[in-house]
Amino acid sequence: MNLKKDAETIFLKALESQLPENAVIENLKKIKLSKKIFILAVGKAAFKMAKSAREYLGERVCGGVVITKYGHSEGKIENLDIFEAGHPIPDENGIKAADFALKKIEKLKCDVEILFLISGGGSALFEKPLDGITLEDLIFINNSLLRSGANIVQINTVRKHLSSVKGGRFAYLNKGRDIFSLILSDVLGNNLDFIASGPSVADTSTSKQCFDIVEEFNLSPENRILEVLKNETPKNIENSKNIVIGSIDGLIRTAKKEAELLGYFPIVLSSNITIEAKEAGELFAKICRDFPLFNEKLLPVAIIGGGETTVKVWGNGIGGRCQEMCLVFLNRVRNENSMRNFSFLSCGSDGTDGPTDAAGGIISNDTVEIVNERNIDSNVFLNNNDSYSLLNEIDALVKTGPTGTNVNDIHILLIE
Amino acid sequence: MNLKKDAETIFLKALESQLPENAVIENLKKIKLSKKIFILAVGKAAFKMAKSAREYLGERVCGGVVITKYGHSEGKIENLDIFEAGHPIPDENGIKAADFALKKIEKLKCDVEILFLISGGGSALFEKPLDGITLEDLIFINNSLLRSGANIVQINTVRKHLSSVKGGRFAYLNKGRDIFSLILSDVLGNNLDFIASGPSVADTSTSKQCFDIVEEFNLSPENRILEVLKNETPKNIENSKNIVIGSIDGLIRTAKKEAELLGYFPIVLSSNITIEAKEAGELFAKICRDFPLFNEKLLPVAIIGGGETTVKVWGNGIGGRCQEMCLVFLNRVRNENSMRNFSFLSCGSDGTDGPTDAAGGIISNDTVEIVNERNIDSNVFLNNNDSYSLLNEIDALVKTGPTGTNVNDIHILLIE
Repeated sequence: MNLKKDAETIFLKALESQLPENAVIENLKKIKLSKKIFILAVGKAAFKMAKSAREYLGERVCGGVVITKYGHSEGKIENLDIFEAGHPIPDENGIKAADFALKKIEKLKCDVEILFLISGGGSALFEKPLDGITLEDLIFINNSLLRSGANIVQINTVRKHLSSVKGGRFAYLNKGRDIFSLILSDVLGNNLDFIASGPSVADTSTSKQCFDIVEEFNLSPENRILEVLKNETPKNIENSKNIVIGSIDGLIRTAKKEAELLGYFPIVLSSNITIEAKEAGELFAKICRDFPLFNEKLLPVAIIGGGETTVKVWGNGIGGRCQEMCLVFLNRVRNENSMRNFSFLSCGSDGTDGPTDAAGGIISNDTVEIVNERNIDSNVFLNNNDSYSLLNEIDALVKTGPTGTNVNDIHILLIE
Repeated sequence: MNLKKDAETIFLKALESQLPENAVIENLKKIKLSKKIFILAVGKAAFKMAKSAREYLGERVCGGVVITKYGHSEGKIENLDIFEAGHPIPDENGIKAADFALKKIEKLKCDVEILFLISGGGSALFEKPLDGITLEDLIFINNSLLRSGANIVQINTVRKHLSSVKGGRFAYLNKGRDIFSLILSDVLGNNLDFIASGPSVADTSTSKQCFDIVEEFNLSPENRILEVLKNETPKNIENSKNIVIGSIDGLIRTAKKEAELLGYFPIVLSSNITIEAKEAGELFAKICRDFPLFNEKLLPVAIIGGGETTVKVWGNGIGGRCQEMCLVFLNRVRNENSMRNFSFLSCGSDGTDGPTDAAGGIISNDTVEIVNERNIDSNVFLNNNDSYSLLNEIDALVKTGPTGTNVNDIHILLIE
């Protein structure tokens, strides 16, 4: 067995299954759409998702609108209108594009179904404030909430109630028309009304919660805004089918399957590891050392996890949370005397871990040998959050380039 | 299956296997001792270990010395001399007791073997400084090193070189005589020369390291002390057999076996989980929620870990590291909608988690129901390090009383 190669293979296969273009086509094969389809694609992966849907569905597509982030479209797509707009802060271009899309949909014939392709960033990119609310209002309230220490659930609750499309209102606006939403999730836990603020999903937040939040943080919005907040979002949506076509769970399920195919006993710990990167790296190192001592019969094993760890930045080096996990892992196992054959990969599915050109890192017995032979003081790199520099020096980076998907990170530990 | 009861059973069975009295007898059955045996027992579990050895070996025991911590002896043991002394700081009583023991051993006939029963705390309790070194010297150097920020490996290195019994010197002193050392380990990783400063184990630290440490921390001990530090500890010991009879690994192995007997698929992650209690509790909660989603075929499962997590204290509540793990776990799973049947136990093997009368805690679906029904704000307890108070209120403490053993903590997660 070549554990380093296997870990990379498992990662790449898992990644492939969650690429927007592949995920869209795989799922279009499974659903039954009418003969006439209008495509509405919003989010950072909107262009790729729309392009592959248009190619797969061909002439059945009677039109469509794509709204993605600046720099994220790659040319034209036949009979689709393509817009770029501001993200993470919404701007006039986004609102104009949404308005354009809504008007186009209003004029569609009854028998046209909407294929709604949703990906991360859709919340900022697909926005039309309710009557009486301006873009400036949205930005001001958003910033006030952020400054007051409101959490993301609270911010989204208010946002939804000021929008004419979020919180299920887009689906409700088009309640006479069938909508198929294919959702590429960048949110842990796949709470559908969180992804892109859930334009086609029954909302779970309430007007009362908005007023509680306004009170909790001592905000004093103008009366006209309070009036708007009184309106409930739809709590029941019947015309939209929502299918999650890509997510961290999908990434991990494919990884598990691939690991099994390669002969490993697969164990998934969690798809939602959100502890500190340093602690997670430490724990995987301990598992790597101890697991074989207690579970000999389960070898060769693939221990898989996913999620989004956090990093405390105190140095000024280069790195990302996955690379930091790898460095901590390396730093621990290099001092162990009797390690079995192992490899440990930690990578972000978007291909860019932190502000670097690497998806993450991979540590194996070879890497440990190199760092020990060269007598590199890995603590210095660790204390400076400089994981990229060290992993680069010992050839332990994984580079995929930007992948166009973003379903969080995966960690794969193989031991034989 | 009753997951709460099963977790407690697994813990208690595991604990039983590591109790000093049981561990001593189990291991005496396996070794071949001569007809005449002198017992030397040092450490916090010395009394219990000596008592069960004396009972098992009977008249073959020709004498012996027990040195334990104040308040840790429980009466008399036939033809053994029992002493109590200072711990964690050694005192005159400890040195007198060690001196007494060494003189007794010196006078033994050639055919008498020594049964050396070692447990945690033995480093302070069994000490005789080398000629020219006083008890005050030992305490002064120890404190200087502590104040300078030296780590425990560095402190032990210097200590060993000032002692006439540590670092293998006790075995070397008695090199004409066979020694059987039964060791109850309170040290993660079971580095034998760490436990009680390894009186019967070949030393891995060197005189040169002592001088490096003196330099690193800018200590300026008197010349007579530097002279003593020049002497090497024995690097090769042939007359002592060292057997670890109790340890976190033993605790975990028994837990694994018991879990399997009760019908669970057992997975041991690590016996050396040393990350923050909060992070460890969070991770076990995530595993509890996610594991069944990805590994249906492995249910019912027992996921077992051990070690010594750390706690950052910022509040003034009552608790311990295991109870804090339980509280964090509870705090996370109480907000999950669809948890499977589970139980999560985290307990210290000494029976006293932190400064409390509980060994630790146990969380199950029942506990979650109670805390939700009573609408208890678990965050308040968490933010005040007050895990004991909350767990006590909801009947989620595990109490064993002081167990007399100390092989660190165990965490058992059962899911069906």
